[in-house]
Amino acid sequence: MQTPMSAFQPKSSDFAARCRDSFGRQPYMAHLGCELIAIRPGFAEIRMPFRPELRQQHDYFHGGAIASALDSAAGYAAFSLMPEDATVLTVEYKLNFVNPGVGEAILARGQVIKPGRTLTVVQADAYALRDGAEALVATSIQTLMTVAGRADAPRPRA
Amino acid sequence: MQTPMSAFQPKSSDFAARCRDSFGRQPYMAHLGCELIAIRPGFAEIRMPFRPELRQQHDYFHGGAIASALDSAAGYAAFSLMPEDATVLTVEYKLNFVNPGVGEAILARGQVIKPGRTLTVVQADAYALRDGAEALVATSIQTLMTVAGRADAPRPRA
Amino acid sequence: MQTPMSAFQPKSSDFAARCRDSFGRQPYMAHLGCELIAIRPGFAEIRMPFRPELRQQHDYFHGGAIASALDSAAGYAAFSLMPEDATVLTVEYKLNFVNPGVGEAILARGQVIKPGRTLTVVQADAYALRDGAEALVATSIQTLMTVAGRADAPRPRA
Amino acid sequence: MQTPMSAFQPKSSDFAARCRDSFGRQPYMAHLGCELIAIRPGFAEIRMPFRPELRQQHDYFHGGAIASALDSAAGYAAFSLMPEDATVLTVEYKLNFVNPGVGEAILARGQVIKPGRTLTVVQADAYALRDGAEALVATSIQTLMTVAGRADAPRPRA
Repeated sequence: MQTPMSAFQPKSSDFAARCRDSFGRQPYMAHLGCELIAIRPGFAEIRMPFRPELRQQHDYFHGGAIASALDSAAGYAAFSLMPEDATVLTVEYKLNFVNPGVGEAILARGQVIKPGRTLTVVQADAYALRDGAEALVATSIQTLMTVAGRADAPRPRA
Repeated sequence: MQTPMSAFQPKSSDFAARCRDSFGRQPYMAHLGCELIAIRPGFAEIRMPFRPELRQQHDYFHGGAIASALDSAAGYAAFSLMPEDATVLTVEYKLNFVNPGVGEAILARGQVIKPGRTLTVVQADAYALRDGAEALVATSIQTLMTVAGRADAPRPRA
Repeated sequence: MQTPMSAFQPKSSDFAARCRDSFGRQPYMAHLGCELIAIRPGFAEIRMPFRPELRQQHDYFHGGAIASALDSAAGYAAFSLMPEDATVLTVEYKLNFVNPGVGEAILARGQVIKPGRTLTVVQADAYALRDGAEALVATSIQTLMTVAGRADAPRPRA
Repeated sequence: MQTPMSAFQPKSSDFAARCRDSFGRQPYMAHLGCELIAIRPGFAEIRMPFRPELRQQHDYFHGGAIASALDSAAGYAAFSLMPEDATVLTVEYKLNFVNPGVGEAILARGQVIKPGRTLTVVQADAYALRDGAEALVATSIQTLMTVAGRADAPRPRA
């Protein structure tokens, strides 16, 4: 995990509540059993406890589930620094799996490396929690986009 | 989608059944509602129909769900060319989201670009199916590893 | 190489001259012996003939030289579609080396997959030319940014 | 820059000399003016002083030159941990440019995140040195392969 070069100033005093609210509106995160357990300016952490339905064919956490937790951790790390009238879009990411996803839970941590008006770069790493110890499972670099003037919610339906 | 430079020869005459069997042993794929709808030497296609629980906060398919389908499509495209005593491991991938994931289903297609004894490179693209038309949603390059001498199944439990 | 989903309309009638002119102002491209040999809307091709000074320790083209040619091929593929008052910035890329860079020249081809107002996604592939045949050496996905209101040239010095 | 999870044990007592010797056999590194200024188990640092021929059209360091320095920094970070009868191959990498490459020199630092018998994952970051201060210019994740039983030198010619 990179150490941020400096502390980041959120543009919204309400950033933590906005992130938690947005996270709560993601049915997919609930479907995987993910919880947003920490949110700070430029940082987000998601916990995904082990469930049988998250397994691949070797009984480990499926890489797609780990990628999903990393995607959201990076997204909320970036979103925490965005202005109130904006939403966040994932442009792209790259991840390396470095150890098998075995343990009681995956902890996915996103840390902003470089915030920008349009683009924000985040490093997001996933750790497997096993008998109280953490092992690095995946490391990623992600690029997020600030979409200004667009609410972070679906359009209301008539 | 890249056109393969040449047709690929599977090392197992049974490759399609082995891929379908392995896919069937992934509880996570079932949890997302994914189906393996095509398997050929060096190619795999996964269909993920829309379900409310796959949504992110804008009511589109969550990027993590799309990445999960791409991960498995690339994995089985590579696995289709592997010898019988081997299993497949995802080393890393990179994906770009190019259009929102809106539609009745996501079609994730993996095509081997370069098979190798140890490493296989796959291009995997995701399309959103909407009113009969397909739109590119995400494009990825993935690196997979052949793990020789290891069965593609969890160890039996006593 | 991906086939573009549709033909792209350049925003500048002068796009080819603008690309060639910008390329000509890159001392680094000349230092590597790169030539811009084709430019079309959404497409650019760079030729880098073999030179002893481009070698790594195995006497092949150094991966960094190949990446440099791909970087510029992707950049001009994207720049060819940009408006006249804009310059181009490389946001990020990912590349896989799939065969050794051995041959008389490297051909780096960039093809826009998805043009956008702010971001453009390009697939750029490098081929080694050897005895008249081409072999895929590296494949990449690149994200470029349109920087509006900024000339594609250094500021004049007093 | 990631902090390594533990100190790494080189497999060759001679690792530093082997890295310096291999680096010295790369004409391309000399062509860019790169120097290998530090080598430790799992870590390598390359310095690339500013030269007019490394510029792109805005008078900054060309992204390809920065990528080249990162490629070699990652390669020697990985190579420092490899056994004596092996050479190193770059499988793939992904990099993000986060600030313009402006300054007296680029410092490219590669740090092994996860060493492996076959594959090694490295984080490599580039900094611009300007008036004594460093600014992060690019961050990358790279995958390297140990090629056993192959000398790190070209075959002798008859």
